[in-house]
Amino acid sequence: MKPSESLKKLGIELPTPPSPVGSYVPGIRTGDLILVSGQIPLEDGKLTLTGKVGSDATLAAAQQAARRCVLAGLAIAAEHAGGIDGIEQVVRMGVFVNSAPGFTDQPKVANGASDVLVEIFGDAGRHVRAAVGVNELPLDAAVEVELMVRARA
Amino acid sequence: MKPSESLKKLGIELPTPPSPVGSYVPGIRTGDLILVSGQIPLEDGKLTLTGKVGSDATLAAAQQAARRCVLAGLAIAAEHAGGIDGIEQVVRMGVFVNSAPGFTDQPKVANGASDVLVEIFGDAGRHVRAAVGVNELPLDAAVEVELMVRARA
Amino acid sequence: MKPSESLKKLGIELPTPPSPVGSYVPGIRTGDLILVSGQIPLEDGKLTLTGKVGSDATLAAAQQAARRCVLAGLAIAAEHAGGIDGIEQVVRMGVFVNSAPGFTDQPKVANGASDVLVEIFGDAGRHVRAAVGVNELPLDAAVEVELMVRARA
Repeated sequence: MKPSESLKKLGIELPTPPSPVGSYVPGIRTGDLILVSGQIPLEDGKLTLTGKVGSDATLAAAQQAARRCVLAGLAIAAEHAGGIDGIEQVVRMGVFVNSAPGFTDQPKVANGASDVLVEIFGDAGRHVRAAVGVNELPLDAAVEVELMVRARA
Repeated sequence: MKPSESLKKLGIELPTPPSPVGSYVPGIRTGDLILVSGQIPLEDGKLTLTGKVGSDATLAAAQQAARRCVLAGLAIAAEHAGGIDGIEQVVRMGVFVNSAPGFTDQPKVANGASDVLVEIFGDAGRHVRAAVGVNELPLDAAVEVELMVRARA
Repeated sequence: MKPSESLKKLGIELPTPPSPVGSYVPGIRTGDLILVSGQIPLEDGKLTLTGKVGSDATLAAAQQAARRCVLAGLAIAAEHAGGIDGIEQVVRMGVFVNSAPGFTDQPKVANGASDVLVEIFGDAGRHVRAAVGVNELPLDAAVEVELMVRARA
């Protein structure tokens, strides 16, 4: 099944990619690699989850937020790949979790993003990742996700 | 305008790239990609800004420090590109901000580095980035910046 | 000397790479680049070092843990390169150190991983790196290391 068909079946609508503002861009393509800037969980320009995971925010909420981040990243990547079906392979995901002291379930948070990639792309959604805790994130976001994919030649 | 001309016009002199010491190197080229090690804000071998941004260090000082880091990174990248004009595109910047509790303006700190890239390279300076807070950095540096650029073929 | 010969001479046996579980994978190859997921210091599936470096864990123990992480990463990379001798160059290492307040020797921790790369690969082991402190890591690991290498064409 094509990724675009999986999206429909899953009832997922990718968000509208943001317009570039300032000196950096949402995504860039170099050769067949597409890199995407760190995404925080936004809906209509507002953060959907802030604060420290493990105290202010639950694991379940953080997983949803991570999923939202990576879908935003996919939307950006798709723009540089001629559409979602132009993405051949998800390569790498970096996950930064705004972590309360003692919170060590960063991999479970990251799974919220990893799992939806496999739902959409199947085996081509399996990627490498680094998931770590941090003490602060932009605008107090609960999670930030960056993405690298490979486009079809 | 060539990047080398922009540098002159802006009155920016890139620092001398450090010599490799130890088991890692300042920069490496693989294909047309040049990756640069995380840079901390040094002048004559001494840190120009230490401590936590938001308490020990101001936002404005951190922006200057981020700018200094990325200029050091550019100097290293230029060595692997046959000079600054051999850099075709800035691809990615990773920004780690030594953050006081409650400091969430990591993107504003990162702008100090992003903006100078666009001043030097124009559109070719626009890059993807991930900016996050961390609780500690090497030698108590206030900021650390890593860089990836693409060289001309 | 070939890396495989260096390993023997050094008395290093690479660990068995983990099987992929869940939605992400230990390593991925895209073109001649091999990327490896963030590794924590495991032996027989158990963490060898947990807690904050600088308080719960010593620098020396953290260096050994970083070495263990990168050897696990190499084992994964070797699988995608047709064996350790198929790795042409170590490109990048990302090192996240679970840091106690005031611990700023992340580069020394990272050296535990960087040094063994040069022992195994010689000059081809020299890489770029970013070493930072973080407040929490998965399962309370003391260190996490991610890796990128280039395979022979």
